[in-house]
Amino acid sequence: MRFFSDNAASVCPEVLDAIARANAVDTAYDGDALSKRLDGAFSDLFETQVAALWIATGTAANSLALASLVQPYQGIVTHEQAHIQEDECGAPEFYTGGAKLMLVGGEGAKLTPEAVTARVAPIRHDVHQTQPAALSITNATEYGLTYSPAEVGALGDIAKARGWGFHMDGARFANAVASTGASPADLTWRGGVDVLSFGFVKNGGMSAEALIFFRPELAAQARYRRKRGGHLFSKGRFAAAQILAMIDNDIWLRNARAANTAATRVADAAHGRLVYPVQANELFVRVSSDEAARLRAQGFDFYDWAPGEIRLVTSWDQPAEQVEALAAAVAAL
Amino acid sequence: MRFFSDNAASVCPEVLDAIARANAVDTAYDGDALSKRLDGAFSDLFETQVAALWIATGTAANSLALASLVQPYQGIVTHEQAHIQEDECGAPEFYTGGAKLMLVGGEGAKLTPEAVTARVAPIRHDVHQTQPAALSITNATEYGLTYSPAEVGALGDIAKARGWGFHMDGARFANAVASTGASPADLTWRGGVDVLSFGFVKNGGMSAEALIFFRPELAAQARYRRKRGGHLFSKGRFAAAQILAMIDNDIWLRNARAANTAATRVADAAHGRLVYPVQANELFVRVSSDEAARLRAQGFDFYDWAPGEIRLVTSWDQPAEQVEALAAAVAAL
Amino acid sequence: MRFFSDNAASVCPEVLDAIARANAVDTAYDGDALSKRLDGAFSDLFETQVAALWIATGTAANSLALASLVQPYQGIVTHEQAHIQEDECGAPEFYTGGAKLMLVGGEGAKLTPEAVTARVAPIRHDVHQTQPAALSITNATEYGLTYSPAEVGALGDIAKARGWGFHMDGARFANAVASTGASPADLTWRGGVDVLSFGFVKNGGMSAEALIFFRPELAAQARYRRKRGGHLFSKGRFAAAQILAMIDNDIWLRNARAANTAATRVADAAHGRLVYPVQANELFVRVSSDEAARLRAQGFDFYDWAPGEIRLVTSWDQPAEQVEALAAAVAAL
Amino acid sequence: MRFFSDNAASVCPEVLDAIARANAVDTAYDGDALSKRLDGAFSDLFETQVAALWIATGTAANSLALASLVQPYQGIVTHEQAHIQEDECGAPEFYTGGAKLMLVGGEGAKLTPEAVTARVAPIRHDVHQTQPAALSITNATEYGLTYSPAEVGALGDIAKARGWGFHMDGARFANAVASTGASPADLTWRGGVDVLSFGFVKNGGMSAEALIFFRPELAAQARYRRKRGGHLFSKGRFAAAQILAMIDNDIWLRNARAANTAATRVADAAHGRLVYPVQANELFVRVSSDEAARLRAQGFDFYDWAPGEIRLVTSWDQPAEQVEALAAAVAAL
Repeated sequence: MRFFSDNAASVCPEVLDAIARANAVDTAYDGDALSKRLDGAFSDLFETQVAALWIATGTAANSLALASLVQPYQGIVTHEQAHIQEDECGAPEFYTGGAKLMLVGGEGAKLTPEAVTARVAPIRHDVHQTQPAALSITNATEYGLTYSPAEVGALGDIAKARGWGFHMDGARFANAVASTGASPADLTWRGGVDVLSFGFVKNGGMSAEALIFFRPELAAQARYRRKRGGHLFSKGRFAAAQILAMIDNDIWLRNARAANTAATRVADAAHGRLVYPVQANELFVRVSSDEAARLRAQGFDFYDWAPGEIRLVTSWDQPAEQVEALAAAVAAL
Repeated sequence: MRFFSDNAASVCPEVLDAIARANAVDTAYDGDALSKRLDGAFSDLFETQVAALWIATGTAANSLALASLVQPYQGIVTHEQAHIQEDECGAPEFYTGGAKLMLVGGEGAKLTPEAVTARVAPIRHDVHQTQPAALSITNATEYGLTYSPAEVGALGDIAKARGWGFHMDGARFANAVASTGASPADLTWRGGVDVLSFGFVKNGGMSAEALIFFRPELAAQARYRRKRGGHLFSKGRFAAAQILAMIDNDIWLRNARAANTAATRVADAAHGRLVYPVQANELFVRVSSDEAARLRAQGFDFYDWAPGEIRLVTSWDQPAEQVEALAAAVAAL
Repeated sequence: MRFFSDNAASVCPEVLDAIARANAVDTAYDGDALSKRLDGAFSDLFETQVAALWIATGTAANSLALASLVQPYQGIVTHEQAHIQEDECGAPEFYTGGAKLMLVGGEGAKLTPEAVTARVAPIRHDVHQTQPAALSITNATEYGLTYSPAEVGALGDIAKARGWGFHMDGARFANAVASTGASPADLTWRGGVDVLSFGFVKNGGMSAEALIFFRPELAAQARYRRKRGGHLFSKGRFAAAQILAMIDNDIWLRNARAANTAATRVADAAHGRLVYPVQANELFVRVSSDEAARLRAQGFDFYDWAPGEIRLVTSWDQPAEQVEALAAAVAAL
Repeated sequence: MRFFSDNAASVCPEVLDAIARANAVDTAYDGDALSKRLDGAFSDLFETQVAALWIATGTAANSLALASLVQPYQGIVTHEQAHIQEDECGAPEFYTGGAKLMLVGGEGAKLTPEAVTARVAPIRHDVHQTQPAALSITNATEYGLTYSPAEVGALGDIAKARGWGFHMDGARFANAVASTGASPADLTWRGGVDVLSFGFVKNGGMSAEALIFFRPELAAQARYRRKRGGHLFSKGRFAAAQILAMIDNDIWLRNARAANTAATRVADAAHGRLVYPVQANELFVRVSSDEAARLRAQGFDFYDWAPGEIRLVTSWDQPAEQVEALAAAVAAL
């Protein structure tokens, strides 16, 4: 039973259907009617004018976002456990031309205004030191915590006051929206976010994320960078189709709610063992290696995360009986 | 009727079926059984041990190939009309860290040993001048010409003698194989090719090309670069599935033959107007602007390529009646 | 007798004296009084407000200039024999993050408006093709030809009309000013030049060129890039001192005139053998290999440039008797 | 009185004399007899065959060294207070093509084997995470501490065991040799160092550091990168002359001893207030802001380094009376 990552979940039927339907279109790159619908669809969803690009992966989306916000000689303030720092093989450095990630600590991979301010306070404003020019947060974080609109806004205030760009890695943005109940707008541009990597793949998509520019004028250069990165699919209609299939009828929210609900069910059973509160679809659970072995023996597949700690991730397509089985197994430890 | 590019052709049913079947797999990245089959499948096809990676686009495949062959301070000898020079927004420069494309002329975007040798002859072997370290050709070329095994080998000899890497952009490699009747091995590594970008998307795929390393030891670094470029799909099984669906049962050859046959049919009708011999699935036809307008009025969609010259591209999925209609229309000019 | 390059000429006494005097200063980087005089000294010379940075080499000055004008995904239109293309080991690609040099032909390494316009005319305005964003010319050219103010202005008009930046490689700018009699202002910003690499090393300096921004707001980012390139000397006062020593009392003009006069003297003797008119301090002379050997036997050191063609370069410090000897030897061929 | 940095110290007379003498040479770039002496001079000094290049600045030397050891997608393990991380505006990222600095803490900017091992232990060996490929230490450190041969060797053992390159930033290598009494060989290659940035500028030079490759085969690519970085002076003889002037007759050691002795003299007076032991020519002294103000009022120029802490740096040319005055002033606090 797959609890090691939502990365490997199945593609939801609406997406597969949309892919099949898109085959009838025969316009190349992003000149097709589906790709052209993206700006409008996301402008509606976010209640403001945005520019939206399909991008194959979250890594590429994050990197293109950051490249649109900083110069090669500048820096990006982010959490030391952020995906852009830990799990992208230096893609942000590649796409930005060598910008420096400036790391900040904090519980649950979550940044606070205080920690950000303290990190940059000692930086002299001279050419010897890398000058920060962007802030990047992940919502939900790599440890399954969410930022509320107020928390986003407090970080956005710092970014605006210093003239930084503000990026949100939303690989699990759908889970954050589903969990907080906040509107997509309140969780992003109303709090100062300039660019959002809006994840669909973990949530039922196949090979398309959306890169949302709340400052639409940034999109023009990003289109060149997307091509230059080898990310302009010639049959882009299939990428657009995936995304639209999940925006239409709020499939993205339906799927995220399913994953979150599953996580909450297991979290209830893991009470007392949770390293962090469960606010999305990831659980970090304290278990001994004996206990971990017992769970595995029952067919549960997951990662050891740290000594005495495992990670469990629920997915949109998780069968209820698997969730119940996991909850029971955890409760029985 | 779509004769502007094979880029926009439909996805063939075998590929769509394979995508649907791959949904049952739940392993992430390229750890799945389908991705793991690639090395073997291509080693069989090429009659030698290769390492094979799926890559989303031809642009990315070409750029990763070149980055595996040259240092940032070196150069890549290629045709001045090559796709890597003209149509990739500088992706090779991006992935190689700024290597220089060293351009060579020649009819039909085809390189000759003489032209290559003449281009590099004046280069001093000192640190002031960019030193060439790789050769890149396209087979079939951007003008629909093919290199025979002997022609590939003659260029390969130059590359080997000078210690250069040798890359083949095979966006339409299937068309070249179908046209020449040569074996994939004879058209590549037996002629000295080190890395091949093997195109599937124009030929009935959706979003996956194959990057074939005939020196398998080069693949390890390419895997890092692929991730760093944001090209490691988390649901990579869908990319592998597309490619395998076309390798199995030689669908790639079936499709390429269909496109080539259509091109030949139209070429016969365009006799006397052809700018280049038709050896794959592209035709460059001399027509006046009046004649071009007449073709468009009959519903044919294509690009003006140069003054008095249009480009017609046939695709694997072109209905016979469209091909016949085009042939008739061209003959009637 | 050194006629192979002005690159190897001696340092003029005013510069050596200034270096010795600068030793008394003890401020680091470019915070010293000498470095701070540069903006003013060059603003006076160019009759407009400029920002001026010292840079160790012409290669670095050119590359920093170009990096301030183009994005990594854009292009630089320049001559196919330009120093930035032929003799800098890809430094422009390095500093710009991989921008593409877009090459134009023309006699004597000189660009014409017609040639530039023809080069860029076929470029489609889409993300597949590299979009030109800067124009770079060399004055005097690599073949010793000068651009007049009108010629600079005609190219500047193209650049402005298309929104491109305009860079002048002035490794031998002093020779061009001395030769044309035009004012520094007329040869640069009045003709639309945005950034000038103003050479001092070939003309009697030791290790300092000046990078002149006629749009001073571009200098801020260039200061970061200079540091990032490892070009911010901690004892920058010695670089500033060299430049100021040559600006004060017009030593730069005195030296350039000496080199030009020497070239003209030899040119008179080479009448009928000159490949290009001699407008600065370089001569390209048609000689057989026997004749070249005879010149070498008399102690003249120079480069073979092309079959049947040698290059002779005169320097600011060339003793009159060497010049006369060369003139006599050439006349006697 | 200048105690803010050795960066701004004067150039020693031997260097100025050598510069004047080098003016008679007229060979360009590094083809001159002085430049050609470097390999031999440093091979003698280090008791092994090395390849040595002159480089304008320590920042460039460090960056070129690192670029010769890692691929763009790899990482460099170093101290979080290292100059390459804190004071080079991202030059290592620029020259390496975006490699990641992987930061380690520790007192006095000094790395220990334990800290290095702990930093890299959690890194998974997969393409998602940046893989470390080099270790970089500074000797003497940015806080004036030295590594002994045994300490260098212990770190070198880690590097070798893991297949990493090993770089030493020796901006104050002379001070480390003078302080430890160890031989240059024992402090470097005998401990596993592959490349050393050997600083001369802080120690009496003007604009030349030496980049020493203990694996001479690495130098070939570094020569291309040096040119590409715009660091190949056309009058390179003046750089070589500076370095040779300091190697001949052990001027480098004489100067470093002078600086160290001055530091020790002040350290004795600052007993009880020192943040770190004084092992080279830098002192970090605990003083209140009132005390700092009193020192400044007496004409001493220095940096505040941290709350309640100042940095004092002694230089090779520090007059004894200034040193005594500072010692007295500190003692009197």
